[in-house]
Amino acid sequence: MSDPVIICCAITGSVPRKSDNPAVPVTVAEQIESSHEAFEAGASIIHAHVRNDDETPTSDPDRFAALKEGLERHCPGVIVQLSTGGRSGAGRERGGMIPLRPDMCSLSVGSNNFPTRVYENPPDLVDWLSAEMAAHGVVPEIECFDLSHLFQAAALHADGRLPQRPYCQFVMGVRNAMPADRVAFDAMLTTKRHLFGDAPWCAAGIGRHQLELNEWAIAAGGHART
Amino acid sequence: MSDPVIICCAITGSVPRKSDNPAVPVTVAEQIESSHEAFEAGASIIHAHVRNDDETPTSDPDRFAALKEGLERHCPGVIVQLSTGGRSGAGRERGGMIPLRPDMCSLSVGSNNFPTRVYENPPDLVDWLSAEMAAHGVVPEIECFDLSHLFQAAALHADGRLPQRPYCQFVMGVRNAMPADRVAFDAMLTTKRHLFGDAPWCAAGIGRHQLELNEWAIAAGGHART
Ligand SMILES: [Zn+2]
Ligand SMILES: [Zn+2]
Ligand SMILES: [Zn+2]
Ligand SMILES: [Zn+2]
Repeated sequence: MSDPVIICCAITGSVPRKSDNPAVPVTVAEQIESSHEAFEAGASIIHAHVRNDDETPTSDPDRFAALKEGLERHCPGVIVQLSTGGRSGAGRERGGMIPLRPDMCSLSVGSNNFPTRVYENPPDLVDWLSAEMAAHGVVPEIECFDLSHLFQAAALHADGRLPQRPYCQFVMGVRNAMPADRVAFDAMLTTKRHLFGDAPWCAAGIGRHQLELNEWAIAAGGHART
Repeated sequence: MSDPVIICCAITGSVPRKSDNPAVPVTVAEQIESSHEAFEAGASIIHAHVRNDDETPTSDPDRFAALKEGLERHCPGVIVQLSTGGRSGAGRERGGMIPLRPDMCSLSVGSNNFPTRVYENPPDLVDWLSAEMAAHGVVPEIECFDLSHLFQAAALHADGRLPQRPYCQFVMGVRNAMPADRVAFDAMLTTKRHLFGDAPWCAAGIGRHQLELNEWAIAAGGHART
């Protein structure tokens, strides 16, 4: 590989709380400082969620605006990627931060099970989020929790709903979704090449699968989420 | 291949109406006669849905009981497979026919998108349907609309929620779910072998993809849904 690996750092997901791990940054100020450290350590992309004061996830555009502004000041040149994931809001609320024009937003394009519920991304919401991102010049990172999600990305790109060649992330190790299985990883990668050729891609292993997925992705020419 | 191919005949899905195709059998009597013809033509499994008088899909156990009784009389020895699919009811309603102890029922083990909505199979419903089938000696056919669904079947089998080695059907060609793509088919088959070795399996192509999927499945040693 001659291209440098892009390290995407997810500072805080939407689930862990201070009571689980006192080190988890949940306020906007904490997230900015934690991102600053990751940026100095070499992270190129900051993938960010925001929280309410009670630590529950939210899609509040004002909190995202404060976070984005802080990231731009403390981490000049970093790629800011804001989450439109479904744990933080319902329906179009999930895309309320897109008009802030961050560099990127995450975009789920299909539905799947999560540990205790259905992760719902109905087709009309996927279309709306895609259109919002296109309208605001935001590059999506396609979150592929299953193999068909790569095909959904291809379908969205084929008819122009996604203007750019999709940048896909394989998400593995979520219980009741795709496990961190090597045969599944190879299937995702083969399909990515079938659909998008040498387009850049990345992979994220959830929880205890993080390092394993980083290794697989980097060895196969992909980028890594930490 | 030395083993005979099993032909599973889906007499009526839950969607097409008489107004779409006057030949579609929708009453229980029509479905029994249509199944009888398929049985005489060589079908080994009858996969069945039932309808209300207005042709809308239902999971009504009384209609399923009448259908099952007719199938057993007109098609002696046929394998009766009743649908627990989500177009016909909500939540546990979908499994109301399991106590009839048909030979098989369909079982979806994950969630995915359908053309205009989310096909919801939350984890607790999957567990309940699996337990109902196990309690009544009903063999499930696992409907795999995406790659991770094969892994869900493996997880259900590993901890005993599915007593039998899973019999999986790859379902391809539903818009916004898995397309009828050869690379995806090969990924499903490789994963099936990785998880379940030489266990029997089948594939169904939806709509215009039916014959193509039958050809792929039979050539690869699988069974076919028509
Ligand atoms: Zn995230
Ligand atoms: Zn700083
Ligand atoms: Zn069916
Ligand atoms: Zn008859």
